[in-house]
Amino acid sequence: MSKKIGIVMGSDSDLPIVKKAIDMLDTFGVEYEVHVYSAHRTPDEAGVFASNARANGFGAIIAAAGMAAHLAGAIAARTTLPVIGIPCKSSCFDGMDALLSTVQMPTGIPVATVAVNGAANAALLAIQMLAIEDKALADKLDAKRATDAQKVLEKNDAIQAEFNKK
Amino acid sequence: MSKKIGIVMGSDSDLPIVKKAIDMLDTFGVEYEVHVYSAHRTPDEAGVFASNARANGFGAIIAAAGMAAHLAGAIAARTTLPVIGIPCKSSCFDGMDALLSTVQMPTGIPVATVAVNGAANAALLAIQMLAIEDKALADKLDAKRATDAQKVLEKNDAIQAEFNKK
Amino acid sequence: MSKKIGIVMGSDSDLPIVKKAIDMLDTFGVEYEVHVYSAHRTPDEAGVFASNARANGFGAIIAAAGMAAHLAGAIAARTTLPVIGIPCKSSCFDGMDALLSTVQMPTGIPVATVAVNGAANAALLAIQMLAIEDKALADKLDAKRATDAQKVLEKNDAIQAEFNKK
Amino acid sequence: MSKKIGIVMGSDSDLPIVKKAIDMLDTFGVEYEVHVYSAHRTPDEAGVFASNARANGFGAIIAAAGMAAHLAGAIAARTTLPVIGIPCKSSCFDGMDALLSTVQMPTGIPVATVAVNGAANAALLAIQMLAIEDKALADKLDAKRATDAQKVLEKNDAIQAEFNKK
Amino acid sequence: MSKKIGIVMGSDSDLPIVKKAIDMLDTFGVEYEVHVYSAHRTPDEAGVFASNARANGFGAIIAAAGMAAHLAGAIAARTTLPVIGIPCKSSCFDGMDALLSTVQMPTGIPVATVAVNGAANAALLAIQMLAIEDKALADKLDAKRATDAQKVLEKNDAIQAEFNKK
Amino acid sequence: MSKKIGIVMGSDSDLPIVKKAIDMLDTFGVEYEVHVYSAHRTPDEAGVFASNARANGFGAIIAAAGMAAHLAGAIAARTTLPVIGIPCKSSCFDGMDALLSTVQMPTGIPVATVAVNGAANAALLAIQMLAIEDKALADKLDAKRATDAQKVLEKNDAIQAEFNKK
Amino acid sequence: MSKKIGIVMGSDSDLPIVKKAIDMLDTFGVEYEVHVYSAHRTPDEAGVFASNARANGFGAIIAAAGMAAHLAGAIAARTTLPVIGIPCKSSCFDGMDALLSTVQMPTGIPVATVAVNGAANAALLAIQMLAIEDKALADKLDAKRATDAQKVLEKNDAIQAEFNKK
Amino acid sequence: MSKKIGIVMGSDSDLPIVKKAIDMLDTFGVEYEVHVYSAHRTPDEAGVFASNARANGFGAIIAAAGMAAHLAGAIAARTTLPVIGIPCKSSCFDGMDALLSTVQMPTGIPVATVAVNGAANAALLAIQMLAIEDKALADKLDAKRATDAQKVLEKNDAIQAEFNKK
Repeated sequence: MSKKIGIVMGSDSDLPIVKKAIDMLDTFGVEYEVHVYSAHRTPDEAGVFASNARANGFGAIIAAAGMAAHLAGAIAARTTLPVIGIPCKSSCFDGMDALLSTVQMPTGIPVATVAVNGAANAALLAIQMLAIEDKALADKLDAKRATDAQKVLEKNDAIQAEFNKK
Repeated sequence: MSKKIGIVMGSDSDLPIVKKAIDMLDTFGVEYEVHVYSAHRTPDEAGVFASNARANGFGAIIAAAGMAAHLAGAIAARTTLPVIGIPCKSSCFDGMDALLSTVQMPTGIPVATVAVNGAANAALLAIQMLAIEDKALADKLDAKRATDAQKVLEKNDAIQAEFNKK
Repeated sequence: MSKKIGIVMGSDSDLPIVKKAIDMLDTFGVEYEVHVYSAHRTPDEAGVFASNARANGFGAIIAAAGMAAHLAGAIAARTTLPVIGIPCKSSCFDGMDALLSTVQMPTGIPVATVAVNGAANAALLAIQMLAIEDKALADKLDAKRATDAQKVLEKNDAIQAEFNKK
Repeated sequence: MSKKIGIVMGSDSDLPIVKKAIDMLDTFGVEYEVHVYSAHRTPDEAGVFASNARANGFGAIIAAAGMAAHLAGAIAARTTLPVIGIPCKSSCFDGMDALLSTVQMPTGIPVATVAVNGAANAALLAIQMLAIEDKALADKLDAKRATDAQKVLEKNDAIQAEFNKK
Repeated sequence: MSKKIGIVMGSDSDLPIVKKAIDMLDTFGVEYEVHVYSAHRTPDEAGVFASNARANGFGAIIAAAGMAAHLAGAIAARTTLPVIGIPCKSSCFDGMDALLSTVQMPTGIPVATVAVNGAANAALLAIQMLAIEDKALADKLDAKRATDAQKVLEKNDAIQAEFNKK
Repeated sequence: MSKKIGIVMGSDSDLPIVKKAIDMLDTFGVEYEVHVYSAHRTPDEAGVFASNARANGFGAIIAAAGMAAHLAGAIAARTTLPVIGIPCKSSCFDGMDALLSTVQMPTGIPVATVAVNGAANAALLAIQMLAIEDKALADKLDAKRATDAQKVLEKNDAIQAEFNKK
Repeated sequence: MSKKIGIVMGSDSDLPIVKKAIDMLDTFGVEYEVHVYSAHRTPDEAGVFASNARANGFGAIIAAAGMAAHLAGAIAARTTLPVIGIPCKSSCFDGMDALLSTVQMPTGIPVATVAVNGAANAALLAIQMLAIEDKALADKLDAKRATDAQKVLEKNDAIQAEFNKK
Repeated sequence: MSKKIGIVMGSDSDLPIVKKAIDMLDTFGVEYEVHVYSAHRTPDEAGVFASNARANGFGAIIAAAGMAAHLAGAIAARTTLPVIGIPCKSSCFDGMDALLSTVQMPTGIPVATVAVNGAANAALLAIQMLAIEDKALADKLDAKRATDAQKVLEKNDAIQAEFNKK
């Protein structure tokens, strides 16, 4: 049975960002669970979720948080599953606070950090992890790449038609 | 009986910085306990220490960490004692990563942040907190201020003697 | 008799931010006084307020200012009460100027700095300081934490109901 | 047969940093291949390596580069294997240029970014990915965590013995 | 026969910025081709375009991209024509990520970087390059400078009329 | 009688930087007084100095401080003489904290800020201010400019002799 | 006869910012001339203006520019009058590019830099310079300070009436 | 007759950086002239050099400067030849001040900016510009690319021999 992806956000105000991860997982037909756990307001629940994640059938965990974004690190401290961190842009610093709080982890506890608000990529990264041992999923990733490339080339055609006069 | 100050550092490599806090507390004769607890490598022990701190006679906790400095926030998540964060300068970004990870806490869980590597001030701040209800300690703080001012004025005299010709 | 919290803002344009501190103190039933004193336009009045604060029954002072935010430091220079600084976001630099001007205090004069615009946390931090020796207030802080956690868990339930299909 | 980890560095001057990833993989007994491929000087060879990586038995690729660190992104553009980026600190900006060049990837092509110079964590992250479907490797990761925690606690004992007088 | 300028953007969402380069080339009557090629989604097509650019009559290539802006570097890796990079401002960091990703190129592969969103200047720079050996084009550049200066002096006259009372 | 320049440093550890201002004033034969006054440790003395500066024959005041550099602003708050701020580089942030704390002054209280550690320029700026109404001093400034230019041209000659082969 | 203040802006798009300097000079009855001169598009005119400024009765020059703000430095290179630089906020970096381009001047050519968009303070600084030898102007500056302080105290009264219940 | 490259540095202290540009031009056998002209101390000489550069047989100008690096912009303001800017790292900000002062040029006056201290690339970029219409020079550039790639592949072989056990 295939592994699930855990998605944890520090606050439900992060849902508009996180939604892109959910949509991407839906597109690939990958199972997931979504949770709201705060590293600071509900450290126990976040910890319990992380500690049991492997046993509960998760293959990777995506954690999204803003400001002093400790959530991904707090989850990573309680599991040896790969943890993917999404630094969320808040009212200040364009998400630089969240980026540094997420990526600058000390040796021993890595967090796989994606771009600020990069939820779609967080999901793709999780899918890539599952696809290491899942040929069908890897094929879907390749197919998506081909589709994405095709879209760029169609835009190239459109731009050329508009600007490149013969 | 007077409250103790808890000092927690994320790694014993932070000791040279933290030592200035210890020395300041010694100068004021304030009791303290020093611990090495990592928010990521020993989250349970850090949590237990914080959860029991008030019951164990602590009045405030000083937490020092570098990089993605989650320690002060992790401690603050487990106690309603005031938590003072010392962002420690690591090999990158002059401690900006630690500063933002420490100070940009979400609503509900404050961390009283001091300057990068500002361990002496962290101790002074802790002492100021204890002195709110401790007249003798407040008097010692005032006395130190007077001494500090006196030292500046002596330096002023020396500089004037050197540069301000009659 | 319980100590009051002093709240000083550098300009009444900071009131929308500072209001969150006032509301939090009201919620906890902690007494306070609010003032507008500029470190630069009314240095005397700011200094007199700070110098007399302990004698006037204050237990801690919250100072909010933007740009080259000297107010918290100027207050801290005139009292040994704990001073909490709120760096306010102005038209430039997302409050980084105010953050560095507030937090990077020299040894001897600490300012307990909270997040940019973090007025609610400034109030909580002040309440935590008063609660060191006030069991009833500490209990209220613990109760608020429990309520905050409960809110997160309710949001978690809502999110799970929406996204985690059985 | 277990998957290998590919390690690519943009210049052999990055080897002192990358060596920590190699050592970590050796510690876990995970197979790997190390290459020097520049995204800019040898784009073809880097592309061929990435394009064939899955077929050649790799499970994940670690890419280390400094300055305008395009290597991880260039590798990620040619494979759907998970790619882990190590931003390397160069002579300027403390690695902020490499961090932003590595982490701020556009939608569709994620790079799992670790801390500046965070090679040991890059290896751990790669091992965590392989361990999703490898119980023995997951157990080794858990064991390392326990050992790491034990080391912290021993340091805690030593610090307590030195500073916490009875 | 005069050389053409190649314009490549990483996404058609960059067109509003790139349009200013197109308009400038039109103003000078310099031939160009516009393409959408992504360094990450269509690395092959971007590479083929760059590899053949000199043979296909291009004199310089302008590349515009945002975030981890690898496009200019990826183009530059495949041609020895001068490559001009336009860092595009995205949702975060005011384009600092794109600026550092574009300008901090390693030795051997230069990218001539202009200001964030500086598309008009990118075109002018390309025209300046063609004008090195094209007297007529150089004269047009000089004429434009004279016109630009005249416009400033007219504004100076208007401002003086408004503010400088006799 | 000509006006004096006041030089105030926040700590005598700033003397090596401030010395360049002293030397420049000596070169021009401009009178000065040097003081050590801390905005935070000796706010009264700093304030008294500033309040009386105009009456005491000063024409401008130079203030040098590091970290949360409030000194120039604190001086400026107490006098309407022009105040020149030198942001001093400390152990962190390359002086960015001091620069922002010095330059980002609120409306009403300007500080004329020079480059980080720019003490020589601070003195030159003070001399330029005195020279507005002092023809002899203005002539000396012009003479220095000519000398500085001459030195550059001599270096140009030397470089040309070395590199520009006939 | 009293000296005039020169105001130069790099583009008339800076007028809304510069207008605050003009208004402040009007308030104090200080004479001025306003010009639009670009350091890059009209270097000759900017240079001629600066070179002749002292002879033409100017006492100080205010220069406002954004982005790579060279204008203040270019003016300062051609005169030994004090030059005050206003870094203007443009579309990127919140004016940090203009601030660093203005303040980080090399030894020999100071620019008195005020806050980003700090035009009112630039004018006040210029007035302070003229007031060094002009008692009446100095008195006006003192009067304005008193008025500014009074306004703060009135706001303090209003805030106290609203929040400080008896 | 082939065009020369002009190299201008703001101070002879920049020579160690600029030397790499000189060496690169020597390697390619491209003629050049080296000058020390300061944008601020010798604005006239810098301007005269730039104004006459095209007539004097120059094809492009490289300008190197640190801090508020106005030199490249000042040169660019006086010629329509392509100007290449090298931001030089000084004592502060790792060259960020020079980078922003060089790259953020206003519309109309582009500066082709390379990496901080990127003198070798500045020379390569200048050579690329001359090579647009010089087939032999373009061939040399291609040959250097091949050599650079070969060196990387040799390092790859060495690394593989050391680490990739059969």
